[in-house]
Amino acid sequence: MTNKGQILRLLNYKNLLKHLQSLGFKKVFSDNISDTLEISSSLVRKDFGNFGITGNRKGGYDIDSILSKIDEILGKDEIQRVIIVGVGRIGEALMSYQGFIKEGIQIVAGFDIEPDKTKTDTSVPIYHIDKVSDFIIENKIKICILTVPQMVAKHTVDLLSASGIGGILNFTPIKFQSTSELTINNINIVHELENLIYVVNKQKENQSKT
Amino acid sequence: MTNKGQILRLLNYKNLLKHLQSLGFKKVFSDNISDTLEISSSLVRKDFGNFGITGNRKGGYDIDSILSKIDEILGKDEIQRVIIVGVGRIGEALMSYQGFIKEGIQIVAGFDIEPDKTKTDTSVPIYHIDKVSDFIIENKIKICILTVPQMVAKHTVDLLSASGIGGILNFTPIKFQSTSELTINNINIVHELENLIYVVNKQKENQSKT
Repeated sequence: MTNKGQILRLLNYKNLLKHLQSLGFKKVFSDNISDTLEISSSLVRKDFGNFGITGNRKGGYDIDSILSKIDEILGKDEIQRVIIVGVGRIGEALMSYQGFIKEGIQIVAGFDIEPDKTKTDTSVPIYHIDKVSDFIIENKIKICILTVPQMVAKHTVDLLSASGIGGILNFTPIKFQSTSELTINNINIVHELENLIYVVNKQKENQSKT
Repeated sequence: MTNKGQILRLLNYKNLLKHLQSLGFKKVFSDNISDTLEISSSLVRKDFGNFGITGNRKGGYDIDSILSKIDEILGKDEIQRVIIVGVGRIGEALMSYQGFIKEGIQIVAGFDIEPDKTKTDTSVPIYHIDKVSDFIIENKIKICILTVPQMVAKHTVDLLSASGIGGILNFTPIKFQSTSELTINNINIVHELENLIYVVNKQKENQSKT
């Protein structure tokens, strides 16, 4: 399974099933999942079949079993250590984001070019960017969140790439392409918002026409 | 044009062209754009054709003209006023994010349930969530960024929807579906990171096998 759509569906199944579990559900049917996530129930069954998750028409799927299977597929048995490069407001917010640790993701360090920002007496230390290469190599870090300013984004990606990082979640406005060695997923918040504004304005225009 | 892919491409064109402009470029060819963005040059020409942007094989496209045409298409002639609901760390970071105003997006207010967080003596005032409905109606707000905790996400979406908001950029882990009245775009940062971790781990496994 290398298809991004499949993995995101898997994460959506997990989210939904955890929610149902918190409501006291033990079993779930593919139809319940498909109705809630608005995908076809045959796709749900196909995904589950691909992942070796079995159920039956009468009794449905056991939620506990699906959840542990999903965690196994996602490699959730070990804590994933992630660094944040660029400790501005967004970087700082992500550094203390509570949602990560629940999913087995630990932010282990931040890096910034500003000497004033470095501090090591906190739960997550912030080091000078000069130390990022050594840190990645010594700690075998594979994943980085990139929240530096746009003008130093390219340079920083080159530095991270040379240090052997495997994946970057890029929040800068520059859109980077993945290579065979380095996967870069781009999240452009401004574009997402511009896109939303465009769609909503078009809808309002169309509504006022009718 | 209502296709999300098309609009995101348009935003990518704009980003690239602004960058080229800052380097002193006046003209650009569809091949330059397609090489940089890794899409086909025929798709670039098709997009430009659809938007009424004309160029010629010899001289290429005039960057100034494309940029003003893109802004026109995106409805960038007026400032887009956006509110942020949930002033936690992520909400706070987005509230002062410099990238928005450059694109004509103004964060006009924040809302939070904590009375301690409300303050009106700042450039962007923060009001109690009780006031959000009146604010949306009085100020004709169409777009909201949602950064509340997961457990109040559903309730807050219902409240915003009832107040007549047209679009929500949702950063909570709950995946909401759009309706004909309300467009919801979901950004799940934890999922993006989990997906990246999965892909990178698979790549490392495959590399160690070969």
